[in-house]
Amino acid sequence: MRIRGRRYRTIWLAADGWSVKVIDQTRLPHAFVVRRLTSLGDAAEAIRTMVVRGAPLIGATAAYGLCLGAREDASDRSLDVGRETLLAARPTAINLRWALDKLRGVARGVPVEERVGVLYAAAAEICDADVRACEAIGRHGVELIRAAKVGKRGRGPVNILTHCNAGWLATVDWGTALAPVYAAHDKGIDLHVWVDETRPRNQGANLTAWELAQHGVPYTVIPDNAGGHLMQRGEVDLCITGTDRTLISGDVCNKIGTYLKALAAKDTGVPFYVALPHSSVDWEETTGSAVPIEERPEREVTHVEGRAPDGSTVVVRVTPEGSPVANHAFDITPARLVTGLLTDRGLCDASPAGLFRLFPERRAGKGDPSPPARMAESRVPGGGG
Amino acid sequence: MRIRGRRYRTIWLAADGWSVKVIDQTRLPHAFVVRRLTSLGDAAEAIRTMVVRGAPLIGATAAYGLCLGAREDASDRSLDVGRETLLAARPTAINLRWALDKLRGVARGVPVEERVGVLYAAAAEICDADVRACEAIGRHGVELIRAAKVGKRGRGPVNILTHCNAGWLATVDWGTALAPVYAAHDKGIDLHVWVDETRPRNQGANLTAWELAQHGVPYTVIPDNAGGHLMQRGEVDLCITGTDRTLISGDVCNKIGTYLKALAAKDTGVPFYVALPHSSVDWEETTGSAVPIEERPEREVTHVEGRAPDGSTVVVRVTPEGSPVANHAFDITPARLVTGLLTDRGLCDASPAGLFRLFPERRAGKGDPSPPARMAESRVPGGGG
Repeated sequence: MRIRGRRYRTIWLAADGWSVKVIDQTRLPHAFVVRRLTSLGDAAEAIRTMVVRGAPLIGATAAYGLCLGAREDASDRSLDVGRETLLAARPTAINLRWALDKLRGVARGVPVEERVGVLYAAAAEICDADVRACEAIGRHGVELIRAAKVGKRGRGPVNILTHCNAGWLATVDWGTALAPVYAAHDKGIDLHVWVDETRPRNQGANLTAWELAQHGVPYTVIPDNAGGHLMQRGEVDLCITGTDRTLISGDVCNKIGTYLKALAAKDTGVPFYVALPHSSVDWEETTGSAVPIEERPEREVTHVEGRAPDGSTVVVRVTPEGSPVANHAFDITPARLVTGLLTDRGLCDASPAGLFRLFPERRAGKGDPSPPARMAESRVPGGGG
Repeated sequence: MRIRGRRYRTIWLAADGWSVKVIDQTRLPHAFVVRRLTSLGDAAEAIRTMVVRGAPLIGATAAYGLCLGAREDASDRSLDVGRETLLAARPTAINLRWALDKLRGVARGVPVEERVGVLYAAAAEICDADVRACEAIGRHGVELIRAAKVGKRGRGPVNILTHCNAGWLATVDWGTALAPVYAAHDKGIDLHVWVDETRPRNQGANLTAWELAQHGVPYTVIPDNAGGHLMQRGEVDLCITGTDRTLISGDVCNKIGTYLKALAAKDTGVPFYVALPHSSVDWEETTGSAVPIEERPEREVTHVEGRAPDGSTVVVRVTPEGSPVANHAFDITPARLVTGLLTDRGLCDASPAGLFRLFPERRAGKGDPSPPARMAESRVPGGGG
């Protein structure tokens, strides 16, 4: 995607050919800062502190983190320890485990001295495959938006509600939930996005608003409380969210509050779609309550960062001093509330049958699905910054 | 209720016998400031800018506002103009109209030169009646909490989720949703309150957290997104909210986001109660979509007020510069999602039959129900500040 006219991915290899650059998402929207990661510890810290976030981008960063670790020591033991360190950085996003297992598998049959090159190639392929997957999600999803437009018979733009940030900042490029939005907008389909603020970290207000504005897509930021009311009033035509982990049962783990929007969508007859690459599917787990739900620091709830009138970035306390808070990062939306899963292979029911129809090789337990055949039309080989 | 050991109501007559004092709720929790209202314009401004808020307190403030106006000119025309000015301050809370109509009726048969005294007496009675009504809500509601405690068979405290602030700050004293909480806590029933932050104005984090802390009630502030997850996990035993206007149909208009919590409660089998004095019932309207939903300033969404590290109160911008926002203040929770209405006359179904059973005089259209027979045990005649 473009930032002030310049093409970027969210993660790329630096000009030195080994260190890794990422956009520091904790600084957006008030500052655009690129960070350089030079060690596995840097990568784990970037994931833990949400310098990078979004399930697919967490996977990509972990992959490069393992490469950075391998530069120091590419032995089996070192890679296993590195994998554990990275896995511990955040517990919920399945892409983290998926990417690390992929790299660990790639290294297994390769002599230690050749592993660094092989791992870097695999990490790069994970990034490229994510871009292709997101582009494919966009291609499939644009049909949903086009159908909604036709159904409105000229009554204004297609209104799409999204929660948190599942845009290009959450992936390597294009995004999951927002890939169809960008694709439809670029095709000239009249649309407008309701952006849930997404407390407590405000990824909607901070990141989704920012990236939609950069791309010129019309949007409106709303408090998380407002979506149900807008659906009741007929002001939402469809919902699309991302997911940190979708179970083979079709249950969707995503940012806290997703469940509430899915309930409102069901109650008001608004279609509720979840967009995801195959790397976000947990092919083994069927029980939502078995997914570890991360509890994050209290400070994310008690304090808010913003821009003061003098232009400086200030963190202010909003709750009374000493106020106890809880901060669960995700919830589980039961499959029965999900109209469909929008994957890189197309739309399917949120069910084992639906997922296995699109990914039959998974039924046989044959391992990871192959990437979509068609390449993204607008890949960015390098990136900038 | 008590603030640092001293008894307060939220509104009271100053020592001069005519001007009106209120707690400035825009300054809580970071500062405790009392404001003096000396004109009808002051009262309208206090309502409009949410120096006072909460449906019952808005009604009480409007009543005193009309008194202040009558001191200048108590003619029919002046009272009618004053009523319109106060009505326009906020559109949704029905108590505003209820209180003004009550005072307008009281003045009607009285010579102009005697009206000021009559109006002040009526405003004082509105306040006293509100205290009695809230105390009665607490008395009835404590039985719900006690039953929940028995049902838990010793498995921890009763966990109550509330949205926005329907505590004593929203009324003259005691509160609506929180009246049962205070009553149960004072009776030694082990309970804990999940406090929805309540974006965009943070009345939960700012006001409910503050008043529960003042009274020593255990609580935890959560983002508005979290309640559904907690209900799924069995960590909520009942929900109690207030209401700005409950229709005779049983549909509940309350702070934006209430509908989402009611959906989650229904989906997870958690009882969802709405607490209200009879003054919050709209005895005429049956259609939720007919209720005017206030749209408030964008700045409530784009900016957050909090305490900076140096102790000063600072307003910071959270959305990107120029970001469009929407700010609907209320939503409608359909009666089918409401387990019961907790009124000053006890619990009833959220339906015309339920409300008419408790308020039969309303079926006959005989006007306002009489106040509950039993007086509050802990009235505060004066107040302080």
